[in-house]
Amino acid sequence: MKQGSAYIVGAGPGAVDLLTLRAYRLLCSADVILFDRLVNPQILDLARRDALMIDVGKRLRQSSAARQNTIHLLLAEHVRAGKKVVRLKGGDPFVFGRGGEEVLALAEEGIHVEVVPGISSSVAVPASAGIPVTMRGMASSFGVFTGHPAEDSDHDGIDWDAAARVGTAVFLMGVGRLSHLVSQLLAHERSPQTPIAIVANGTLPNEQVVVGTLQTIVSKAGNISPPATIIVGEVVHLRERIRAILSRTFQAESQNAMLPPSIESITARIPGLQPQTA
Amino acid sequence: MKQGSAYIVGAGPGAVDLLTLRAYRLLCSADVILFDRLVNPQILDLARRDALMIDVGKRLRQSSAARQNTIHLLLAEHVRAGKKVVRLKGGDPFVFGRGGEEVLALAEEGIHVEVVPGISSSVAVPASAGIPVTMRGMASSFGVFTGHPAEDSDHDGIDWDAAARVGTAVFLMGVGRLSHLVSQLLAHERSPQTPIAIVANGTLPNEQVVVGTLQTIVSKAGNISPPATIIVGEVVHLRERIRAILSRTFQAESQNAMLPPSIESITARIPGLQPQTA
Repeated sequence: MKQGSAYIVGAGPGAVDLLTLRAYRLLCSADVILFDRLVNPQILDLARRDALMIDVGKRLRQSSAARQNTIHLLLAEHVRAGKKVVRLKGGDPFVFGRGGEEVLALAEEGIHVEVVPGISSSVAVPASAGIPVTMRGMASSFGVFTGHPAEDSDHDGIDWDAAARVGTAVFLMGVGRLSHLVSQLLAHERSPQTPIAIVANGTLPNEQVVVGTLQTIVSKAGNISPPATIIVGEVVHLRERIRAILSRTFQAESQNAMLPPSIESITARIPGLQPQTA
Repeated sequence: MKQGSAYIVGAGPGAVDLLTLRAYRLLCSADVILFDRLVNPQILDLARRDALMIDVGKRLRQSSAARQNTIHLLLAEHVRAGKKVVRLKGGDPFVFGRGGEEVLALAEEGIHVEVVPGISSSVAVPASAGIPVTMRGMASSFGVFTGHPAEDSDHDGIDWDAAARVGTAVFLMGVGRLSHLVSQLLAHERSPQTPIAIVANGTLPNEQVVVGTLQTIVSKAGNISPPATIIVGEVVHLRERIRAILSRTFQAESQNAMLPPSIESITARIPGLQPQTA
């Protein structure tokens, strides 16, 4: 049997129309889609009616390592069966998405793969909240850190010297350990007056933002629950001026605007993008 | 006259189909498009035949500050004239794109604006070269730095301690000062054996990659010319394993695949996205 094809695809931060054209077309034509809990259900609705949809998110009730292994096996199995397989991941596949591991696992099976980048929430979530991660004269660098320690380690995995010194520090999924984060930044000489923002459900209709300083944020953040993105740096000050003129958030203007063109209208007009017959 | 609308839009790293759906629809319907030299001409071809296309790139032969001021004036002028105005920027508008400045300039004029994020080359160019910026157990953070100092400063603007300590350091537009960059990282205790990659014309058909270590890269990088992205960190080692199975670069499969659906086919099918009549 002719081998199928594998695509590791970034779904972006949430809104359907922040998919890339490439991701959109792949979703419309895939035979099999493996997705996880960070992906917006409206994006999954783009799939063909007869596509096989496999939820490989935390509902699998396996340990993280076992779940990852299951994903690798499923990917390889469906590609070998001749299918066009899309592994859909929130944000960008190579930003804390374990996309690198999935590519390497396919490599060991001799399966070729295409990686399709997505809009990373590390930049888009701050932007949605009115915060540019860089700003001339204010922040000429930014760093992105994950707040989850590796399962097999006591160490939190973050070089706090680096986190305290980059112009803007963005922490993904760190809200459960906010007080640890704040005390580490203070211990590494970031000023207590440094502004900090926490954005929950960033880019989505229920987006929630709390702003404070390293000194005040822990007492202000009581009601924020994960998933959330934390932004530390002077650029947070720009939010008040910028949000006042942002004409909308990253949501589409209406539910109707989310209705996709039909699969046929896209695939028929773009040569080379007809669904592959395996 | 009814005021028009302003959009600051990320064009992504180069390939047309790495535009977001939202950016694509805005480009197809805009009255006026202000673009700069980093944007792929194929992307500009998406514009309406009767759209006013304004090149605000370096060909304006003004100082950086004067040119930026011209951009702000043009944006405001066309919005006031009732136009749908797209300011198109390479990559993401808030990653070293001066998008923040443009938003604030519009704010001072009382003009509302929508920011549309784009795929940042800081993540997509390494990925295109087979390098994930993060990898479990190898790099749990990444930092993005600009290699250009501010015009009005002797200081190079980079906190080299931070750059030497993040898991993966990405430098945009730093190839002209490669030896300075390498010596600073070594002086800040990054190991001479740390792998480093330089990617010129990343994600484009003429992509060129040179790989070495901090010790060897300066002598190996003779033929690389800007624009280029520099990646420093252990993840560079993954390139050999990953590139072997990448089924294609970030380019579309063929020139034909780049032909866009007609403007009408998109705007007619997506309620809310008809071109605005001002």
